[in-house]
Amino acid sequence: MDHFEVTYQLRLLSGETVEQKIEDLCLEQSAELPRRLLSRAIAERVTGKPGEPQKISDNHWRVSIQWPTDDIGDEITQLLNLLYGNISMKPGIRILDLSWDSLPSGLMNGPAWGIDRLREAFGTPRRALSSTALKPMGADAGTLGNDCYEFACGGIDVIKDDHGLANQHWAPFEERLKAGVEAVRRAADDAGHRARYFPNITSSASKTLERYRLAAETGADGALICPHLCGPETLHQLARTALPLPLIAHPAFSGALTGHPDSGFEPGFLCGGLWRALGADFVIYPNTGGRFNFSSDDCHSINAHARATEQPWPRSFPMPGGGIKFDTLPGWIEEYGRDITFLIGGGLYDHPKGIRYAAREFTELLQDQR
Amino acid sequence: MDHFEVTYQLRLLSGETVEQKIEDLCLEQSAELPRRLLSRAIAERVTGKPGEPQKISDNHWRVSIQWPTDDIGDEITQLLNLLYGNISMKPGIRILDLSWDSLPSGLMNGPAWGIDRLREAFGTPRRALSSTALKPMGADAGTLGNDCYEFACGGIDVIKDDHGLANQHWAPFEERLKAGVEAVRRAADDAGHRARYFPNITSSASKTLERYRLAAETGADGALICPHLCGPETLHQLARTALPLPLIAHPAFSGALTGHPDSGFEPGFLCGGLWRALGADFVIYPNTGGRFNFSSDDCHSINAHARATEQPWPRSFPMPGGGIKFDTLPGWIEEYGRDITFLIGGGLYDHPKGIRYAAREFTELLQDQR
Repeated sequence: MDHFEVTYQLRLLSGETVEQKIEDLCLEQSAELPRRLLSRAIAERVTGKPGEPQKISDNHWRVSIQWPTDDIGDEITQLLNLLYGNISMKPGIRILDLSWDSLPSGLMNGPAWGIDRLREAFGTPRRALSSTALKPMGADAGTLGNDCYEFACGGIDVIKDDHGLANQHWAPFEERLKAGVEAVRRAADDAGHRARYFPNITSSASKTLERYRLAAETGADGALICPHLCGPETLHQLARTALPLPLIAHPAFSGALTGHPDSGFEPGFLCGGLWRALGADFVIYPNTGGRFNFSSDDCHSINAHARATEQPWPRSFPMPGGGIKFDTLPGWIEEYGRDITFLIGGGLYDHPKGIRYAAREFTELLQDQR
Repeated sequence: MDHFEVTYQLRLLSGETVEQKIEDLCLEQSAELPRRLLSRAIAERVTGKPGEPQKISDNHWRVSIQWPTDDIGDEITQLLNLLYGNISMKPGIRILDLSWDSLPSGLMNGPAWGIDRLREAFGTPRRALSSTALKPMGADAGTLGNDCYEFACGGIDVIKDDHGLANQHWAPFEERLKAGVEAVRRAADDAGHRARYFPNITSSASKTLERYRLAAETGADGALICPHLCGPETLHQLARTALPLPLIAHPAFSGALTGHPDSGFEPGFLCGGLWRALGADFVIYPNTGGRFNFSSDDCHSINAHARATEQPWPRSFPMPGGGIKFDTLPGWIEEYGRDITFLIGGGLYDHPKGIRYAAREFTELLQDQR
């Protein structure tokens, strides 16, 4: 029988023993019945088989559990259910890692592009990439297109829609898409740098697929989606289409899963591991020191998971956003390495000489580190 | 300009002021730029307009914010993004309520059936309803069908698949569906009580829709979905189909949103408010005193939200599961009222005289309270 392994961190509540908590987890996420009510055959067939737990501190333990791959059937939703369905409602359980290479083949495929193919397509063999966001919500498509043109002339590599730009009447999806595509092409003619435009296509699963097709047909260079808004499996479906566009995964609505140290998902596992497995070529995360609550360890862990060579698929670009200023950028490159895409959004809008100049200052700092 | 209102509970971190935290929220969830970078027109058009904050305790405040309905466009995903997209990654913000009746008309429609129509269809005008789950994962479709038959003969009103029964090879969806449908019909002929069978149709959004159609065609009486696995909007899409089946919403994968008192969603808002708005006729939640971490207040709040008559759509059946025993059932009816569906799963499998007898004992207790 084939198995895959999930590694958990457990915090014991008053009165709990580690054996009890593990036994409970192995049953809750499979048979959902007490062991004494299961036949030996069913218990063997579906329940998790724990390894030896390791004590980390007084109340914290780490344990790996082998799960029958048959429990998943052929569905990502059921993998997510097995990982964190009912136990999401139990305190003190955090998921740290998964043995991606022992999942059923074809269940997930990882990114269609990944770092190496993207570097080739972009003609940027070594340096860190630059990225920014078109905003604010409420601006019309013409204004957003102009900003896109300015950023592109300034040398930005990846220009994405803000994830709050959906289909509001000020800049409906289709209009915005056309404006962005046209802007990066015109900038390439005028300024010689071909920026890539990634519209936000997040909607219901079916509309996300529609917008993806429209984006590809219209000539967009990629697309941004929020997997926790449109359903994580949508990311996988997009990455599997013929002639796929590179995909950026955005963390909107996912923070409850990573924000509490004793529950949910370790950020590296979620953003660097799961989104990559589902097909994200870029994974956005809130950089430490910015306006969100990710620690330096969280960020390093996301980078490590996104770029781990042991995983059975191409590597994803980590895309830290927030907390990055021009004078700290060389330090971040030093710290995170060059296989990274820096996202500076609001910071570029706040430059006395305008956004094209701000973009140029940003991208020249990356050229220096070529 | 039309607005809708969201009520938040804020916990101030060291160094934060309530004004600052509110201003940050109003910008983060709309323009995502500092106010000084926004034109007056854009600020007026998209940012949240807060009311007067109320102090609840030393560090806790409550505030209502008016959001322009135009910020949503025409999409549930963008409503969820506005509610809890980026701020899901910021500590100390919890969503308590939403003015459902001021959302754009047609954005959400609530349950297609609701308590009153279901009572009429089921022929149960007053009493509390009974419900159970087919399990365990690993059993074949024939065994699950037999259990379904036994439960139906025992008088259970709603027999649902366990949410872990997906499309595993032991009991593939289609086989299981047929066995369940056949079982409740045969039991009606043999024992005179027509139980309702609700298969679990949770999968990717598109496969969920496919299974829903198949369930309706095969003669299922309803369907169970986990909105946080297949994407919340899928629930809405199902509830809007022609000749819709009643829908049960299951909380799998949602626990990170409700399990922390200073962040995420108040359980009544999520399970009783949002799932109802999206179209759930029944909302499952882990009853207090069971194996999950919901408090008595949480449960009462879910009941209140699910049955509130101020909301612009039919009422949903609260469906508490866990922590309910035969001898405590009369007390729960007293406490929760009769507009409720009690879910006893594992408890019925653990009866010395078998599941049909257990079901009969369960359902007779509800008849007594007619």
